[in-house]
Amino acid sequence: MDIFEKLQNDKGPLGRHSNIEEGYFMFPKLEGELAPRMKFRGKEVLNWSLNNYLGLANHPEVRKADAEAAKKYGLAYPMGARMMSGNTNLHEQLEKELSDFVMKESTMLLNYGYQGILSIIDAVVGRKDVIVYDAESHACIIDGVRLHLGKRFVYPHNDIENLEKQLERATKLANESGGGVLVITEGVFGMSGNMGKLKEIVALKKKFDFRLLVDDAHGFGTMGKTGAGAGEEQGVQDGIDLYFSTFAKSMASIGAFVSGDEGIIDYLRYNTRSQIFAKSLPIALVIGALKRLELLRTKPELKENLWTIVNALQNGLKEKGFNIGTTQACVTPVLLSGGLNDATGLIVDMREHYGLFFSVVIYPVVPKDVIMLRLIPTAAHSLSDVEETINAFESVKDKLLSGEYRKKGVAIIAE
Amino acid sequence: MDIFEKLQNDKGPLGRHSNIEEGYFMFPKLEGELAPRMKFRGKEVLNWSLNNYLGLANHPEVRKADAEAAKKYGLAYPMGARMMSGNTNLHEQLEKELSDFVMKESTMLLNYGYQGILSIIDAVVGRKDVIVYDAESHACIIDGVRLHLGKRFVYPHNDIENLEKQLERATKLANESGGGVLVITEGVFGMSGNMGKLKEIVALKKKFDFRLLVDDAHGFGTMGKTGAGAGEEQGVQDGIDLYFSTFAKSMASIGAFVSGDEGIIDYLRYNTRSQIFAKSLPIALVIGALKRLELLRTKPELKENLWTIVNALQNGLKEKGFNIGTTQACVTPVLLSGGLNDATGLIVDMREHYGLFFSVVIYPVVPKDVIMLRLIPTAAHSLSDVEETINAFESVKDKLLSGEYRKKGVAIIAE
Repeated sequence: MDIFEKLQNDKGPLGRHSNIEEGYFMFPKLEGELAPRMKFRGKEVLNWSLNNYLGLANHPEVRKADAEAAKKYGLAYPMGARMMSGNTNLHEQLEKELSDFVMKESTMLLNYGYQGILSIIDAVVGRKDVIVYDAESHACIIDGVRLHLGKRFVYPHNDIENLEKQLERATKLANESGGGVLVITEGVFGMSGNMGKLKEIVALKKKFDFRLLVDDAHGFGTMGKTGAGAGEEQGVQDGIDLYFSTFAKSMASIGAFVSGDEGIIDYLRYNTRSQIFAKSLPIALVIGALKRLELLRTKPELKENLWTIVNALQNGLKEKGFNIGTTQACVTPVLLSGGLNDATGLIVDMREHYGLFFSVVIYPVVPKDVIMLRLIPTAAHSLSDVEETINAFESVKDKLLSGEYRKKGVAIIAE
Repeated sequence: MDIFEKLQNDKGPLGRHSNIEEGYFMFPKLEGELAPRMKFRGKEVLNWSLNNYLGLANHPEVRKADAEAAKKYGLAYPMGARMMSGNTNLHEQLEKELSDFVMKESTMLLNYGYQGILSIIDAVVGRKDVIVYDAESHACIIDGVRLHLGKRFVYPHNDIENLEKQLERATKLANESGGGVLVITEGVFGMSGNMGKLKEIVALKKKFDFRLLVDDAHGFGTMGKTGAGAGEEQGVQDGIDLYFSTFAKSMASIGAFVSGDEGIIDYLRYNTRSQIFAKSLPIALVIGALKRLELLRTKPELKENLWTIVNALQNGLKEKGFNIGTTQACVTPVLLSGGLNDATGLIVDMREHYGLFFSVVIYPVVPKDVIMLRLIPTAAHSLSDVEETINAFESVKDKLLSGEYRKKGVAIIAE
């Protein structure tokens, strides 16, 4: 049979709605400077959909650093993999500064987060080793685990009791095979805003022999006293053996890094396939990251502003009776009841009549009949943005409950 | 057992030499503008180690476009995955222009090549489908194949007779399971410079029902009448169902793309995990790619210059009795006999006394007792660069044959 024909008939869980979604729900274009107010289809919207937590994307010092770096070096330099011809002093300097910031001995810069962590998992475990990971781990972790030829055990999201059971099974298997155990979780889970229970997991090291890899994409820069992330927040940064974060959130860029003891990072430099066999992070992005990191270090008010907005938004929504789930971080989900038509109708009304832009997550990511709106507050938002947003939520709640959106459905988009 | 301890003791095939290699053979720093003449450890070298085939990395128009784009947009914009909040008109324009250039209906831009093709393979095949691939495929293809839960068959590099056997086996299995067959190869293989036998593979479509994915990283921009790559060169671009290339070679940037019929590309837009779940290519890189593509289209002299240098270098080396293997492309391997000490001694002599910088590939990539030097000619090199290089090769050949390097070994590095 023709492999393509099957795919084109099926389209996949997200592709099935592409006829009504494209350009509106999927692949929308937000235009203008990265800020709370941007343009969507020609109209200004107040947007809550960018992981620009600290507002650095459009910070004047960042913009200046990005522009000057690209002018000085272009966007091509250096060429080749880091190991072959893609290394520079500034790559090494950024690694040193990141190590200091996250309180680890050593750091390896990664050309991109997704392939970076995928290959790190691949490099760390061999056939005899056993992986134990949180069920709600990000796709990049899952893909790394999928490469593993040995055993793996998954524990229900943040279920420490179950994790302990899996660790017992994993330890037994690893002892039999002569391998070791790697536990993988996240600092902050991007959908729910839950923190990984790092403190509880690290405490299990007293009972079990394992290494811990934490993807702190959403915690880096937003959590902890100095912004070093969820490990610092929970007082267990030392217990994290491999601390990973992307630059795609707080750092408002691309690229990523992994930090840990010198011995393991040195090993990773020579054995991480996506880094050995693909181009190094361009130096303009390295210089941009150095500037962003400097602002993380020297401008604690960015994180303070962020949390002012987070608290105002989350408290405000709760006060109005909205269910924001179990978030412990900046990610602010709003859980509502309804089907696809309710969700699309609500989003269209919010965008067209209230000028509010945010993402919606539907089945199969959340159960059928659950609509999860996902708001990302940033340091660049204002308290009046929060007020405007909460008022809009209040206005549409009744329409949702009365079934008004379901009746109109997505026909509104055709307007 | 401790999973890290094992790794740190072993270090892996490349890490084992890190004590003598680091900063010299591994992770060297080439400083200054990306050009044939750069600085290595403070001294000017003539370098043949960058995949900057068309010399675009430092082309004044490219440098201007890169600088202006970063000034206008910064390096953060857009944020989020393409599907969620990372789409722009310019991403779509680049896709359209790439489609036209490679003569395909539709194109999906990818945020990075390695994770892009890995996830494309993952998206195209399901458990019932069968993959057939060339044994010398790049690591990113191998990692994509490793994600596949169904059957896969590998054929010895470019062995079409064997491929036919594998296709017979694959077809039988696919018919039994109700799946299809995907064949994966490269346009130009990066180590040997061999072209994939695309013409012969496409001809097999008369006999077998399969789809063909080609990674043309080294062919795009360098091969074919218009630079559309190895498929155009061999007159079978139409027979390639998914044409992939990175921007990391001729385009002197990062990012990548995949082109094919609209139906399959539309499917991929909604089902390629590393693209759905990771940040979009920054717009400054998109604008940079548009400029680079414009130069590919409008300045055929870049490719002509490249081939003038390629032909002069390859013919010159052959005339002097060097074995350049079976290259059919710009990649210029020089195969010599010797062990690790011969290789390191030769490289040090070349760098320190002849001012020549290029990469060396040793066991396990090539057999023990083979030293593969790998030279990458570019449009920016001159014929006098070629002459200087061939003269240097001639000078060192006797020293290699006499065993002089083996005696001195890597001690020379300590100088």
